[in-house]
Amino acid sequence: MAHALALGRRGLGRTWPNPAVGCVIVAAGRVVGRGWTQPGGRPHAEVRALAQAGPLARGATAYVSLEPCAHHGHTPPCAEALIAAGVARVVTALEDPDPRVAGRGHALLRAAGIAVTGQVLQAEARAAHAGFLKRVTQGLPYVTLKLATTLDGRIATATGESRWITGADARRAVHAQRLAHDAVLVGAGTARADDPDLTVRDLGAGHQPLRIVIDSRLSHSPASRLGRTARDVPVWLCHTATAPQAARAGWLATGAELIEIAGPGPQVDLRRAMQALAARGLTRVFCEGGGTLAAGLIRAGLVDELVQFSAGALIGAEGLAGIGPLGLTALAAAPRLRRLESRAVGADVMTRWGFAGA
Amino acid sequence: MAHALALGRRGLGRTWPNPAVGCVIVAAGRVVGRGWTQPGGRPHAEVRALAQAGPLARGATAYVSLEPCAHHGHTPPCAEALIAAGVARVVTALEDPDPRVAGRGHALLRAAGIAVTGQVLQAEARAAHAGFLKRVTQGLPYVTLKLATTLDGRIATATGESRWITGADARRAVHAQRLAHDAVLVGAGTARADDPDLTVRDLGAGHQPLRIVIDSRLSHSPASRLGRTARDVPVWLCHTATAPQAARAGWLATGAELIEIAGPGPQVDLRRAMQALAARGLTRVFCEGGGTLAAGLIRAGLVDELVQFSAGALIGAEGLAGIGPLGLTALAAAPRLRRLESRAVGADVMTRWGFAGA
Repeated sequence: MAHALALGRRGLGRTWPNPAVGCVIVAAGRVVGRGWTQPGGRPHAEVRALAQAGPLARGATAYVSLEPCAHHGHTPPCAEALIAAGVARVVTALEDPDPRVAGRGHALLRAAGIAVTGQVLQAEARAAHAGFLKRVTQGLPYVTLKLATTLDGRIATATGESRWITGADARRAVHAQRLAHDAVLVGAGTARADDPDLTVRDLGAGHQPLRIVIDSRLSHSPASRLGRTARDVPVWLCHTATAPQAARAGWLATGAELIEIAGPGPQVDLRRAMQALAARGLTRVFCEGGGTLAAGLIRAGLVDELVQFSAGALIGAEGLAGIGPLGLTALAAAPRLRRLESRAVGADVMTRWGFAGA
Repeated sequence: MAHALALGRRGLGRTWPNPAVGCVIVAAGRVVGRGWTQPGGRPHAEVRALAQAGPLARGATAYVSLEPCAHHGHTPPCAEALIAAGVARVVTALEDPDPRVAGRGHALLRAAGIAVTGQVLQAEARAAHAGFLKRVTQGLPYVTLKLATTLDGRIATATGESRWITGADARRAVHAQRLAHDAVLVGAGTARADDPDLTVRDLGAGHQPLRIVIDSRLSHSPASRLGRTARDVPVWLCHTATAPQAARAGWLATGAELIEIAGPGPQVDLRRAMQALAARGLTRVFCEGGGTLAAGLIRAGLVDELVQFSAGALIGAEGLAGIGPLGLTALAAAPRLRRLESRAVGADVMTRWGFAGA
């Protein structure tokens, strides 16, 4: 199952709206088939693994990191494929909460006389499928917040200088993180200040995550790097009804997709924006700031994980804070996070923190 | 030699103005004597180790983490003690830069027919004796800056609430750090805001570091915890000529020592203050903030090491910054630090950073 989970993780960031599943087929103590959900979400992991196993699947055991699907979607149900291949036993890590599955995959297999063992490495599977599970159960994507700062928590000098604070190894780790998410997200202030392209470079990436800007009034220029490359790698902009017609037309002309978020205020309602992204199928979103968007997502309880890169440098109190105002009234109200992992990355220190609610 | 260095480190924080030396005497492959500089700086390590070895020292090898002294101070020269004991060989890590020694310890030994090997584990010895070396060669103490913050670099909420940000394990580690320094240092703002006693608790400490406040106008109250306990554990206050007579009298009545720092400005000149502390014999100073003092010491290039405790909590941009304004004009001017060590301490992450100049 650990192997199936590792195979599944290979698909993270490119299987949405589907989960990134892994499958290993074992016959007589030997691995005869391995598969993981392919880019775009199909073929599914089981189908790939069964194709590799061929006739060896008969009487074998299939390890799958999520309950096999039971419904006819774009592909026939995987439960039926496992039955047709004659596997004797299926071991799964987690029941699929998708209402179209929700135990019916397991039931189909059992009805066909297959021995089913569930909940194997369930905690690891919950972590691996966190994005898919959150989209299906809460209608929200799993949000990872990146924070790359000096050791005193600054992302730029008072005059906005920010290149570079962290080292090349940390920046490469950030690109790998982008690749493991469905989309990269920034606020309009960061988009205007940095004119980023938010693509993955230098990792031989055959795929790029979506690029999303929260830009209430569409203030970022369509002539920006994002605008100029929107036909190569999709760009989505979340804005409010206040966005001027000229800006809308300018962005539509680049090929970007505009997502109008309803709401009473002049700023994009971040919960509704995340709901809109989940409704479009996104399961994992990687937010790269700036401080205002980061603080807004934290205040709204929308962040699941924080990945911090601390560099051996000091900017001091005049510098731009990585997390904007949180409006705390007391220390007891401060969001608390638990350490998931901490290690050196090049000259910097990387720490992954999980939000209590996540 | 590694053993001698480890023994020497036991004395850190309580041997000033002397170095914390370690000595191991080996005869026929067996350790026959071990010693380290005792509290207050004497007896010296060699004397203790020779006493333990007794007649077994004859023909033995002595490993000493610093060149044995050659001058008659409060104690007779250790070089003479080694000669009198009849050791055959002396191995040292580092020449003592003290002008009263500076190679003469080694010369005395050689003149007596003892084989001398120097510079063994020299880099480790430089780190272990960094405070003593800096005092003797630069007339300044080795300054360690503690930074205990939320992961976004805050030491308190906007209203000043700061208890507790880091966990019990980190606080215990801070107390152990206090114990390994000659003195604990805070700014007047922190003293007024927190009314700290800056003592070491819960570690079975038989000794307490000095407590020092940089307090230009002696604004901290003599009725404070520091004032009330100044006869138990020494309190020094560095102030300027602007400090009112009433405040001086109030503090002198507590038993505290007042150190007037000359200088043109209304604030204590931090370089002169550190020079005054080194002139009084201090080798290792542990600064625990606040942000203004931390920034002042950094700007003046007086900090050697930064020990950071990052807690899994967020306060946001309104919170009090752990490092005050540094007045940078460009990112290229930002102080750069190298990572010395990074590890989990309880629920927090501890990282030691070294300043490039240190």
